[in-house]
Amino acid sequence: MRIIDIIIKKKQGLALSPEEIYFFIDGYVNGEIPDYQVSALLMAILFKGLKNDEMLALTKAMLESGEQIDLSLINGICVDKHSTGGVGDKTTLVFAPLIASCGLKIAKMSGRGLGHTGGTLDKLESIPNFSIDLTSKEFINQVNDISIAVIGQTANITPADKKLYALRDVTGTVDSIGLIASSIMSKKLASGANFILLDVKVGKGAFMKTEEEARRLARAMVDIGNGFGRKTVAILTNMEEPLGYMVGNSLEVIEAIETLKGNVNNDFKNLCYALAQEMLLMTSSCKDEDEALFTIEQKIKSLEALEKLKEMITYQHGNPEVINDYSLLPQAKSQIEVKAEKAGYVAELNALDIGLAAMLLGSGRERKEDEIDLGVGIKLSKKVGDYVNKGDTLFTLYSNGKNEDKAKEKALNAYKIVSSKVNPKPLIIDIIR
Amino acid sequence: MRIIDIIIKKKQGLALSPEEIYFFIDGYVNGEIPDYQVSALLMAILFKGLKNDEMLALTKAMLESGEQIDLSLINGICVDKHSTGGVGDKTTLVFAPLIASCGLKIAKMSGRGLGHTGGTLDKLESIPNFSIDLTSKEFINQVNDISIAVIGQTANITPADKKLYALRDVTGTVDSIGLIASSIMSKKLASGANFILLDVKVGKGAFMKTEEEARRLARAMVDIGNGFGRKTVAILTNMEEPLGYMVGNSLEVIEAIETLKGNVNNDFKNLCYALAQEMLLMTSSCKDEDEALFTIEQKIKSLEALEKLKEMITYQHGNPEVINDYSLLPQAKSQIEVKAEKAGYVAELNALDIGLAAMLLGSGRERKEDEIDLGVGIKLSKKVGDYVNKGDTLFTLYSNGKNEDKAKEKALNAYKIVSSKVNPKPLIIDIIR
Repeated sequence: MRIIDIIIKKKQGLALSPEEIYFFIDGYVNGEIPDYQVSALLMAILFKGLKNDEMLALTKAMLESGEQIDLSLINGICVDKHSTGGVGDKTTLVFAPLIASCGLKIAKMSGRGLGHTGGTLDKLESIPNFSIDLTSKEFINQVNDISIAVIGQTANITPADKKLYALRDVTGTVDSIGLIASSIMSKKLASGANFILLDVKVGKGAFMKTEEEARRLARAMVDIGNGFGRKTVAILTNMEEPLGYMVGNSLEVIEAIETLKGNVNNDFKNLCYALAQEMLLMTSSCKDEDEALFTIEQKIKSLEALEKLKEMITYQHGNPEVINDYSLLPQAKSQIEVKAEKAGYVAELNALDIGLAAMLLGSGRERKEDEIDLGVGIKLSKKVGDYVNKGDTLFTLYSNGKNEDKAKEKALNAYKIVSSKVNPKPLIIDIIR
Repeated sequence: MRIIDIIIKKKQGLALSPEEIYFFIDGYVNGEIPDYQVSALLMAILFKGLKNDEMLALTKAMLESGEQIDLSLINGICVDKHSTGGVGDKTTLVFAPLIASCGLKIAKMSGRGLGHTGGTLDKLESIPNFSIDLTSKEFINQVNDISIAVIGQTANITPADKKLYALRDVTGTVDSIGLIASSIMSKKLASGANFILLDVKVGKGAFMKTEEEARRLARAMVDIGNGFGRKTVAILTNMEEPLGYMVGNSLEVIEAIETLKGNVNNDFKNLCYALAQEMLLMTSSCKDEDEALFTIEQKIKSLEALEKLKEMITYQHGNPEVINDYSLLPQAKSQIEVKAEKAGYVAELNALDIGLAAMLLGSGRERKEDEIDLGVGIKLSKKVGDYVNKGDTLFTLYSNGKNEDKAKEKALNAYKIVSSKVNPKPLIIDIIR
C-alpha cells in the first residue's frame, strides 16, 4: 500500500477502505508518512468528503492510536455530553451536577477555551484550588462515590487526532464535516461513556455558521457513535447570541451556581433542562418528557443538584464556599456599564463579537499558550427581543484594564437595535437521534 | 501576508493576487514555507484551478526564481518546440535540423525520458560520444555558427519549478492544468526563444487522455506564452498509437535519419512536416502553407536538413558516421518477431502498452536514477488501419534479454484486431493560436 495511491484515490472522489485509512493514520502517527502527503490528503478529503464507513474507520483508527478510558469499574450508567463550542456556554457546570443528582454517572473530560469560545476547565479553575488533574484511579473512585467528576484529559487518548488536528490547523483543512466528526467522536468514544449527548451549536458564535452544516455534522457524529454501539443523540441549538447573560470564566461560574439555586430563568436554564431531559430519556431513566422535566425541577428545587456541584468541588480540592460567597472567585477591578444610545428592540446580539470582546479583556486565548484572566468578562443586560430605553445599560464590562476601549467598541458593535419588535430565534433547533 | 490565508482563499475558490503567488513561490524556494502547507495549497489549486492572471503570475514567479538564458547574442530568429511527451516521439531529431536548414535558429534544451515516454537527450546519447553538456557560451556560439544545438539544461533555470514538481509528484497534485501549464511555460520562457511551438499530445500514450483536457492545457500555455510577449502556438496531436514505427532510443534515431533522408512516409513524417510548416508560418518565414510545404520538401530532397543533423552531431563531439552506418549505434543482441494469431484490421494499437513494453525491455526509466539500455526497443510492422494476415509480423522486439516474455505479452496486448476496416484517427486534431 502506498500513501500516494490513497491520495489520488480520494482526489478522484472514491471511498477509502478501512485498511487504507488505518495505513494512513498508523503511518502518520509512526512518522513513516510525512506531513506534506497527509496535508494533501486532508485537502482532498475536504473537497471530496468522507462517507459513513470512512468516518467510522477514521474514528476507529484514531481511537486505537492511544489509550481508552475503561469505565466498566463504575457502577451504573455512564453518560457524557459534548458541546461544539460557543459563547457563554457554561452548560457542563449545570448539566453534570443536575444529571448526577438524577442518578446517572458522569465521568467527564473537558477542554480549555480557544479563540472566542470558552472552555469548561478554565471556568472550573476560577474556583480557588480546584484541581482538574486526577489520576485515572481517583477519577473512577470519585465517580463511584459521588457520581460526578469533570477533569482535564488524563490518559494519552487519541494522539493521532492531536497530530492531525495540529496539521489541519496550519493547512486550512479544519472545516471538513468528516474530519470534525471523526475528531470529536474519537475523543468521546475514548472517554468511555455509553450514552453520548452532543450539543451542536449553530450561528455566528459557533463553528458551524449554517443550520445545514450543523445538521450534517450532527448526523455524522450520531451515526459514528451509534456505529460504535454507544447510544448517541445530537441537539442542534442556537448560537447566534451568547448563551445566558454572563461571558467570562468566574462570571459564568456565578451564573451556573445561580441556575442550580433555581434563581435563573433564561435561555441558558432552558438549554440545561432540555439537555438533561434528553439524557434522562435516552438512558430510559424516565418514561416520558413530562416525568423527566418533573425530575429535573425536583432536583433543582431540593438543591440536590447544587449539592452535587458542591461535592465535586470538595472532592477536587476546590473551596466549596464559593457557592455562597462569590467574592472568593477571581474579581475584576472595575465594572464599566455601557448604555444604549437609542431606544428600540434588540434585533441582533452577535455572539462572535461578544466572545471576541471578552477575549480582548483577557478572558480567552488567541493561542494555546496564552495566559488568561479568570476574573474579567461581560455581563449582558439586554438580549435579542428585549426593549431598550435610551440610557439603559446594555452590558457591563468586568475589566482589569486590558483593551477596555476596543472591547467596548466590539461589544457595542454586537448589538443591532431596531424600531419594531423582534422575536428571538428558537433555542432548540432540532434533535437528531 | 500569511500562507494559511492564501491556502484558505484558494480553497474557497478565490483568485490569488500576483503578490500572494510571489509570496508563496519565494517563501517556498527560500525554505520559509514548509512542504506541508504548499502541498495543501497545491491540492486546493488542483480542485479550484488557476485563472489566466494567476497562471501568468505563477509562471513569472517560477521564471524569476532562477537564471534565464539570454539568446540576444544569437543573430536571427530563435525558435523552440516542446512536446508534452509520448511514445515514439523522436520529432525534435527531425524538426530541429529541418527548421535550421530553413534559416531559423534553434537553441533547444531537452529532457530525459521518464515512465513510458522517451526523452530527446537519451535518443541523442545513442550516438557515440554525443555530448549534451555545453557551456552557455558554447551553446550560443554553436547556434550562431550552424543554427542548431540541442543540449541538456545548462544554467540553474526555474529552481522553484523543480522543487514544486518534486512535491507534486509525491502528493497527487501533478494533473492540474494550471500547474502543468505554468511549469512547462516557465521552463520554455527561461530558455529564451521568441517563438514557441507546443506539441500537445492527446490519447492513451499521452499525459492528457482526453481532447478536452489537452485543449484546455494548450489554451492555457498559449495564453501564458503570448502574455509574456513570445509568439506561442499549440498543435493538438494524436497519441492513441505510437508515433512512427520505431520505439526505443537508437531505433528512433534510425527512423529520424531515414526521415531526413526522405525515405519515410508515415504519421511521424507528417507530424514533423506539419510542425515545421506551422513554425515557418508563425515566424513569417513563408507567406502561406503551400510555400512552407514546398520549402520543407526542398530541404529534405536536397539533404540540407540531414546535413544540419550531421553538423550538429559533429559540433557536439558525436560520430557523424552513424548517419551512413547504423551499426555504429547501440545494438540489441536479438530480434524477436511476433506474429499475428488471427487475420483482420488493426483497430487499436495502445501507445501506453507499447511504451511500457519498450520500458520492460530496458529502453525507459521507472525512476529518474534508473539506467537505460539505448539499444533495445520495438519496431512496429502494423499500425491502426492496416490489414494483417494470420502469421504476419506485428512487431519485432529488439532485446538484450530483459523481461522478454512480459514485454511480448504487453505489446501483443496493445493490438486489437477486428474483422471490419478501421480508419486511423487524424494525426493533427487542432491548432490553437
